[in-house]
Amino acid sequence: MATLTVPPSVPSPAEDAEQLQKAFAGWGTNEDLIISILAHRNAVQRKLIRQTYAETYGEDLLKALDKELSSDFERSVLLWTLDAAERDAFLTNEATKKLTSSNWVLMEIACTRSSMELFMARQAYHARYKKCLEEDIAYHTTGDFRKLLVPLASTFRYEGPEVNMALARSEAKILHEKIHEQAYNHDELIRIVTTRSKAQLNATLNHYNNEFGNAINKDLKADPNDEFLKLLRSAIKCLTCPEKHFEKVLRLAINKLGTDEWALTRVVTTRAEVDMQRIKEQYHKRNSVPLDRAIANDTSGDYKEMLLALVGHEGA
Amino acid sequence: MATLTVPPSVPSPAEDAEQLQKAFAGWGTNEDLIISILAHRNAVQRKLIRQTYAETYGEDLLKALDKELSSDFERSVLLWTLDAAERDAFLTNEATKKLTSSNWVLMEIACTRSSMELFMARQAYHARYKKCLEEDIAYHTTGDFRKLLVPLASTFRYEGPEVNMALARSEAKILHEKIHEQAYNHDELIRIVTTRSKAQLNATLNHYNNEFGNAINKDLKADPNDEFLKLLRSAIKCLTCPEKHFEKVLRLAINKLGTDEWALTRVVTTRAEVDMQRIKEQYHKRNSVPLDRAIANDTSGDYKEMLLALVGHEGA
Repeated sequence: MATLTVPPSVPSPAEDAEQLQKAFAGWGTNEDLIISILAHRNAVQRKLIRQTYAETYGEDLLKALDKELSSDFERSVLLWTLDAAERDAFLTNEATKKLTSSNWVLMEIACTRSSMELFMARQAYHARYKKCLEEDIAYHTTGDFRKLLVPLASTFRYEGPEVNMALARSEAKILHEKIHEQAYNHDELIRIVTTRSKAQLNATLNHYNNEFGNAINKDLKADPNDEFLKLLRSAIKCLTCPEKHFEKVLRLAINKLGTDEWALTRVVTTRAEVDMQRIKEQYHKRNSVPLDRAIANDTSGDYKEMLLALVGHEGA
Repeated sequence: MATLTVPPSVPSPAEDAEQLQKAFAGWGTNEDLIISILAHRNAVQRKLIRQTYAETYGEDLLKALDKELSSDFERSVLLWTLDAAERDAFLTNEATKKLTSSNWVLMEIACTRSSMELFMARQAYHARYKKCLEEDIAYHTTGDFRKLLVPLASTFRYEGPEVNMALARSEAKILHEKIHEQAYNHDELIRIVTTRSKAQLNATLNHYNNEFGNAINKDLKADPNDEFLKLLRSAIKCLTCPEKHFEKVLRLAINKLGTDEWALTRVVTTRAEVDMQRIKEQYHKRNSVPLDRAIANDTSGDYKEMLLALVGHEGA
């Protein structure tokens, strides 16, 4: 369900590294050449190119890209070139910094990655920032946001398909009670959302819907402007149907006056190799326009070409 | 600093497996032979013996031991034979069960293992129990105990030597304020104890001691019988000088009328390959009697021989 397209016959990492070096050399940069290479190599291939580039030219490819490129195009190429764990470490670190702080990004990464992907991001965080992810999240958040985000980012959820139906019933009841009491930050509600496996949580929420007549996210909309409730609803959406979450992020980013390039770049670079096909379907269904056309109408230049290559439709 | 002794020339796993099978065969069991093999093989060697045994005799070695042995001796051999991650998963699972529940064991394992060891125990927990460790801890604890234990068990602390002295000063101040207000379960106190690296925490506590005149654990003794404060003090001890914690557990286990074999077995089997040498030194210093003599006086039979072999002094 990735949208990344890799040509049937791929040049060797040494050839790719050489072409990239040529794209940087001389006056001006050959952006088309950079896109034609990097946007059409999978994670393993990009990693080998980076290794080979460093060995051959004595410079990290990311440094070279950083020198040659700028603005949104630069950010999209850099994020894409990082491997998934490093990229998540980078994005979460950014999200704990004052000027770029974002509870949304923290929640999205904690809830939409597999348990092992999240753990590898935490390992990459150690390596790069000499700290752990959860200490930065805990330090930079307070109150209910901290209470929800720290366990979301620290958990190592079980991922098997096993579901305990009796537990699903009893925990659906707990959730309903707490929501009815408007105790949205109750320990038990946080415990269920932050520790149960996605399969178990799904069973609990299905039971909630059947038994109490509403989807839980409808009941969590008492005050539609409450920021904590918004984050909680999005966390539940990310845990149970991530493509709907990503569709909404893309929709808001594109429909916004001026386009939210940070969100657009984040979703495209983090999902192109994972579930972008599903997100595209969801987007088309919800907006009656294909995602690539929406992106093409809203962006321009090399940035546009890069995003379109990653969502699988060049020259749209 | 392990106390495990492995002979200079070790038989092949196939020979060891064959000897073990002979020890089980016939009328009665040859406990001495079992001890002479298993109590003198390191983790890698025991793992190979278990694999070879299963391949050769079509039965898990642990099953066979379970059939042949009984009571405290059985528990010590089984725990020792498990690899460290499986053993920690087993002990923490036991500690979340009603009849064997123990916040102490959960705290001890969460705070004295390296970040990677704790993570591997959490992986082993998935594999064996089809659930995650933190969901069982969260489900089986409440209130302040949950608030402390879940993040302790979920964190993946940074382990580098880097220390931020300005942060140590500011967080020592926060700790002192909260303790002064008797807000022992305050979010900020929990955050610092559960997320900072051991090196950073140590710097913070040194600064606390220098600046405020008391070691933190002295200030946390307002009510010496408060169970939460006891657990918090022990967590701090485990994070900063684990050998003192283990010495105390052994001392209480041995001095207790009737001996606490569960604690004794747990500490010996989990530390023999890690830091038992330091624990022995600490024990001797604190009790003016060597640990092996204390164990020999307090236990008997095969169980005694097994423990003595693991602490590095047979036939004491």
